[in-house]
Amino acid sequence: MNRKLRMGMVGGGIGAFIGNVHRRADALDGQIELVAGAFSANPKRSRQSGKELYLDPNRVYGSYQEMAKEEAALPEDERIDFVTIVTPNSSHFEIASAFLEFGFNVICDKPMTFDLAQAKKLRTLVRKTGKVFALTHNYTGYPMVKEARDRVRKGRLGRILKVVTEYSQGYAVGDVENAASAKIASWRTDPSVAGASNCMGDIGTHAANLGSYITGLEIDELCAELTAFIPGRLLDDDGNVLIRYKGGAKGVLYASQISNGDENNLNIRIYGTKCSLEWHQEYPDELIVKYADKPRQIVRRGNDYNSSVAKNNTRIPFGHPEGFIEAFANIYLNAAKAIRAEVSGKKMPKELDFPNVEDGVRGMAFIDTVVKSAKSKSKWTKLVRT
Amino acid sequence: MNRKLRMGMVGGGIGAFIGNVHRRADALDGQIELVAGAFSANPKRSRQSGKELYLDPNRVYGSYQEMAKEEAALPEDERIDFVTIVTPNSSHFEIASAFLEFGFNVICDKPMTFDLAQAKKLRTLVRKTGKVFALTHNYTGYPMVKEARDRVRKGRLGRILKVVTEYSQGYAVGDVENAASAKIASWRTDPSVAGASNCMGDIGTHAANLGSYITGLEIDELCAELTAFIPGRLLDDDGNVLIRYKGGAKGVLYASQISNGDENNLNIRIYGTKCSLEWHQEYPDELIVKYADKPRQIVRRGNDYNSSVAKNNTRIPFGHPEGFIEAFANIYLNAAKAIRAEVSGKKMPKELDFPNVEDGVRGMAFIDTVVKSAKSKSKWTKLVRT
Amino acid sequence: MNRKLRMGMVGGGIGAFIGNVHRRADALDGQIELVAGAFSANPKRSRQSGKELYLDPNRVYGSYQEMAKEEAALPEDERIDFVTIVTPNSSHFEIASAFLEFGFNVICDKPMTFDLAQAKKLRTLVRKTGKVFALTHNYTGYPMVKEARDRVRKGRLGRILKVVTEYSQGYAVGDVENAASAKIASWRTDPSVAGASNCMGDIGTHAANLGSYITGLEIDELCAELTAFIPGRLLDDDGNVLIRYKGGAKGVLYASQISNGDENNLNIRIYGTKCSLEWHQEYPDELIVKYADKPRQIVRRGNDYNSSVAKNNTRIPFGHPEGFIEAFANIYLNAAKAIRAEVSGKKMPKELDFPNVEDGVRGMAFIDTVVKSAKSKSKWTKLVRT
Amino acid sequence: MNRKLRMGMVGGGIGAFIGNVHRRADALDGQIELVAGAFSANPKRSRQSGKELYLDPNRVYGSYQEMAKEEAALPEDERIDFVTIVTPNSSHFEIASAFLEFGFNVICDKPMTFDLAQAKKLRTLVRKTGKVFALTHNYTGYPMVKEARDRVRKGRLGRILKVVTEYSQGYAVGDVENAASAKIASWRTDPSVAGASNCMGDIGTHAANLGSYITGLEIDELCAELTAFIPGRLLDDDGNVLIRYKGGAKGVLYASQISNGDENNLNIRIYGTKCSLEWHQEYPDELIVKYADKPRQIVRRGNDYNSSVAKNNTRIPFGHPEGFIEAFANIYLNAAKAIRAEVSGKKMPKELDFPNVEDGVRGMAFIDTVVKSAKSKSKWTKLVRT
Repeated sequence: MNRKLRMGMVGGGIGAFIGNVHRRADALDGQIELVAGAFSANPKRSRQSGKELYLDPNRVYGSYQEMAKEEAALPEDERIDFVTIVTPNSSHFEIASAFLEFGFNVICDKPMTFDLAQAKKLRTLVRKTGKVFALTHNYTGYPMVKEARDRVRKGRLGRILKVVTEYSQGYAVGDVENAASAKIASWRTDPSVAGASNCMGDIGTHAANLGSYITGLEIDELCAELTAFIPGRLLDDDGNVLIRYKGGAKGVLYASQISNGDENNLNIRIYGTKCSLEWHQEYPDELIVKYADKPRQIVRRGNDYNSSVAKNNTRIPFGHPEGFIEAFANIYLNAAKAIRAEVSGKKMPKELDFPNVEDGVRGMAFIDTVVKSAKSKSKWTKLVRT
Repeated sequence: MNRKLRMGMVGGGIGAFIGNVHRRADALDGQIELVAGAFSANPKRSRQSGKELYLDPNRVYGSYQEMAKEEAALPEDERIDFVTIVTPNSSHFEIASAFLEFGFNVICDKPMTFDLAQAKKLRTLVRKTGKVFALTHNYTGYPMVKEARDRVRKGRLGRILKVVTEYSQGYAVGDVENAASAKIASWRTDPSVAGASNCMGDIGTHAANLGSYITGLEIDELCAELTAFIPGRLLDDDGNVLIRYKGGAKGVLYASQISNGDENNLNIRIYGTKCSLEWHQEYPDELIVKYADKPRQIVRRGNDYNSSVAKNNTRIPFGHPEGFIEAFANIYLNAAKAIRAEVSGKKMPKELDFPNVEDGVRGMAFIDTVVKSAKSKSKWTKLVRT
Repeated sequence: MNRKLRMGMVGGGIGAFIGNVHRRADALDGQIELVAGAFSANPKRSRQSGKELYLDPNRVYGSYQEMAKEEAALPEDERIDFVTIVTPNSSHFEIASAFLEFGFNVICDKPMTFDLAQAKKLRTLVRKTGKVFALTHNYTGYPMVKEARDRVRKGRLGRILKVVTEYSQGYAVGDVENAASAKIASWRTDPSVAGASNCMGDIGTHAANLGSYITGLEIDELCAELTAFIPGRLLDDDGNVLIRYKGGAKGVLYASQISNGDENNLNIRIYGTKCSLEWHQEYPDELIVKYADKPRQIVRRGNDYNSSVAKNNTRIPFGHPEGFIEAFANIYLNAAKAIRAEVSGKKMPKELDFPNVEDGVRGMAFIDTVVKSAKSKSKWTKLVRT
Repeated sequence: MNRKLRMGMVGGGIGAFIGNVHRRADALDGQIELVAGAFSANPKRSRQSGKELYLDPNRVYGSYQEMAKEEAALPEDERIDFVTIVTPNSSHFEIASAFLEFGFNVICDKPMTFDLAQAKKLRTLVRKTGKVFALTHNYTGYPMVKEARDRVRKGRLGRILKVVTEYSQGYAVGDVENAASAKIASWRTDPSVAGASNCMGDIGTHAANLGSYITGLEIDELCAELTAFIPGRLLDDDGNVLIRYKGGAKGVLYASQISNGDENNLNIRIYGTKCSLEWHQEYPDELIVKYADKPRQIVRRGNDYNSSVAKNNTRIPFGHPEGFIEAFANIYLNAAKAIRAEVSGKKMPKELDFPNVEDGVRGMAFIDTVVKSAKSKSKWTKLVRT
């Protein structure tokens, strides 16, 4: 299959932050080509976006339904190999389902669905169709996150005792008496679009997914408090969670969008009986390893001593910083391997290192459980995802 | 009163970490002179310590009772002006009471007493005697902590929304299968000496005190979980607390002694509607101020732009690092002003900036409430200190 | 001109570090499409590279001469708009000249030529042909470097007194008794390919260019020492330079490839009468501003308070790290605007913010002067580039 | 000798920065007692200082001559054991000579003398009298500096190739058109008091001493430029030096007092064939070790894995920051061991780890050579100290 993969996109019209990130991530490695799109529910805006992206106007659609149907009708050597969905999460389920049923592979933004019930249905559909489904929990794409996971898997931390995950942003605060400062993507705090949670759904799930990815630990039960600090806000803009993992580890996880001056402050610390790890998303090329009896280590991306999985997800040498887009592109690059296999009818590669539909169910169950606990006076609540 | 203050010490025999810290802190500024002591319950050890400290053997006592009595019997221009108590906390109450009743001022290590009941009794006694009582919550002695407090008081943060305080150490972990690594001051995990909590009592109270000192917020209720990770350990070595402050702010506070490779990792972040503060004890000369709409600031100790309280608690110019002992010495220096006033029969200075018996009650109430909540499945529990 | 720009590449066969960087940089923004190449002097390797890049085999050439000629012969709406040259620097001059003379715009890796004489000739040719010539001094592509420059230009630093630039790497050292550790791209230390200098030519020029870009200062004279630490090495692997700028500022610049454990440690500090700037390439999203009388500031990429030039060279929001490739892509993006104008016969945009042939001459004159000074016992030597 | 050492002080009246530092440093460990002083050339100011220091008025003198003579006349068990000299450096030679000749041990601030000739004479006198002479190059007192030295001595860096030392301050700049900002201790820029250099003499010598202490390398020759940026200033406020060490290592050293916003920014990087070290005075508890083939290490003070010399110069556990005063106190503590031996007529301890008269000669020779080179158009100039 000596060609680039052909990608279609739903949502992400010109100007949309996340649409641009996806496009840059897929273009970065010369393995994927954007050829079609339904960039907006507004057909005119969709066409305009297509034009600015230099797409063939015949492949720019007025709706995702039209796109799924017409792309499926194209000859095999023309039609898209997969679709990327970057709309608000209330529409993920129906769009993903439509494309899956037309036989397309899917890459979907997170949170995966509107609620846990949809997530489980989508899981069933993915299993049934056998198509590739990737979820862009992009923070797991960072090489040093993969290095961390590799070290946990190899037992280099010993038994994990404690996990502290924090994800704080400040964009939804400011002087709260000042209306302008309460800016926040309006759909994110609209329960009919965002679902049961804003802050936990938007960034808390990233934090939970990051912990799950690195440690492999499953949450047994949790005790949560959610707050909406801005008067009149319908959903949480801050949340704090105590966690009991299966096997005895404990956790603290918090997410906040009213942490004034914090930018995209996602951090994780994992404490094991042999050593501990610390990673800061804003300084992603470094992984800090702490020992009781020897010097602290700064493991830096791109060095020969990195694990092979870290090396395989790195593009440029040490000291030449990689960033958010590169990590995002790793989700694409790893999913692309699976999609190439699927499209060519070949066997899947042994290890598929990208977030999948099960991670999506896990994330929706996390949100669901946090909301339940918060509503019941922070009662310890079991996380169930079957 | 043109002389140094005369200090006695109970506990802190040669080799004791905290005794040495107190002695260095009191010597640093040439305002206080150690002249007497009962350094150990073992009279021989006490005498040996006195000798190594170059003290007059007549002022080295075999017990604190003897010391209180005999010092009180000395002429006014010879006897100690105050006593410093650096024994395990189970004995603080009786020692402090004895000296207060003999008319001495007291500086006492934290946590203040064995339990909340003792703390309240001690409060009553301090009020009754009118003597100076200072508690060495030393982290409030750092100039940049005082700078932080000053900024909160002046309203520069706006309304405080969230406080995150973490205090993690790793000294009580290591490979837990290895007996030697489970080292921890044995009395600290012995409920009959340490009281109801180890980790929360020892360092959690520091964290709570730091937050209280800077923000002035009072805890309304809290939801806590305590864990003893090391098999056989009788008291907690890790704890996580969700907090609701009076007035609506929320908090996360955790303390841990099993956080492998962490040293004395006390950090606080305070999020306000106008800006936020961040301070790291291991880099104490810097206070980070974060804004939504302008560059992050690194406020550094010793600069002209520092608040007057920060300046008044600083000894050397910017760029010349101050450390733990200097902060500790600030507790002494500020308490010494009050003690000089008390001894000379003068009026107390207007602002007395050192932790006092009320902070001690607050701390004991914090421990008490945390333990109660933890025992009741992390139920939200009111903190009462009346 | 509603289409992507068409790019050809000379050098940069699959596996070449810098070729891959260029390809990722040009793909990142969806404005440029790689359509042709002569990827290797070895025609078979060139073809293999073209295949792996999914290129049309008809546009993969066996030599740059063939490529220039055949592309020039293609219809206007097919042929490349510009060529990117990523070969060793000894061949830059002849390749760039060939493409310029065939009427193509050129993007060229640095150092620009083999020696200063070639650089001047190339300058004459660029002026004569009127084509766009961009030099990939990529470190000037970082948004925070542009922020720094903008602040200097606006006079926010006052008069510049001192500039300290350091660029240290460790890849050419290690235990020097161990042959394997003396690894370094062999052509870089071969005077017949690299020219008069290895370390100063390869990375010292980047450092000098960075200082020149940010401050606008011109070097008047310099005093240099070059060292080859590794026995048998024919060119310098370390160099230290004292600088006198026109107008009275002083400078220290050093470059090193034997600084064990340093990765790509390019740093610059600029001291002005009003404030100072500090930037570290390995943490590129931050610009540190230091004042005598107010808190140090951390200016972070992506904030509203950034200068418009910094904002125009940024892709994603604050807190989402950008890296080396993004900075590199800014050179392409800015050069592409000029190339689009040239190809469409439109007027050049007012400000063309990318390194050009004059920067190339400046760089070659810098190398030339450093080598002269070093050979004359570090005598102060004037830098002449006319 | 079961008593504190008795110290006298010349200079350092109340309010003097460096006098206060010395007093705190000597008091910190309870080994030294200030009992006498000639704190000012003005007898009234001297007496006032003595009073504020709670000294016996009979031991407060109107001149250093009077003090030397009268202290020498006191009974052996009363008189001072050593004198500390903290006057401007033009008077160090005569004061130190006087006390040495009266049989006292001496601790002296740096730079040691007014010029190299005096330094050599003082060396002769110290040798002749056999008294202890310590020079307070205090930065060598930091435990992590001692750790660095220990690692070099043990060969853990391999052969040293390069040393970069920088010491920048900003206090002598600001907006230079503004008179007030040109503030600098007036005597420091007065050649009749400070000697041939201001900035190199005041802080450049610290930088040179630090490099010498850690690496053991001797400067063979150097090439220097000195600048006085502030109009009308009689001595340098900035200087840059290229160094050739004996044995082939190269160095860059610079000192500056016009580096706006820098505080006390003393840093050193030492590059060896096996690994490299980096230390920052403003973060003194950490030593960074960099390797080509394994993770960077942060060696932190107070850990069991520290060298014994680092441990022996540490007071409190890891994570409890030590600072400038503690490092300064280490000079006193180590000199005190020698002074105790001298006073008791015992054999000197084997290793005396404090800067001595030879370091003073080395420092004066460094200043002398820098000034010579700078005056001869930065000619390479040999450093001679015989």
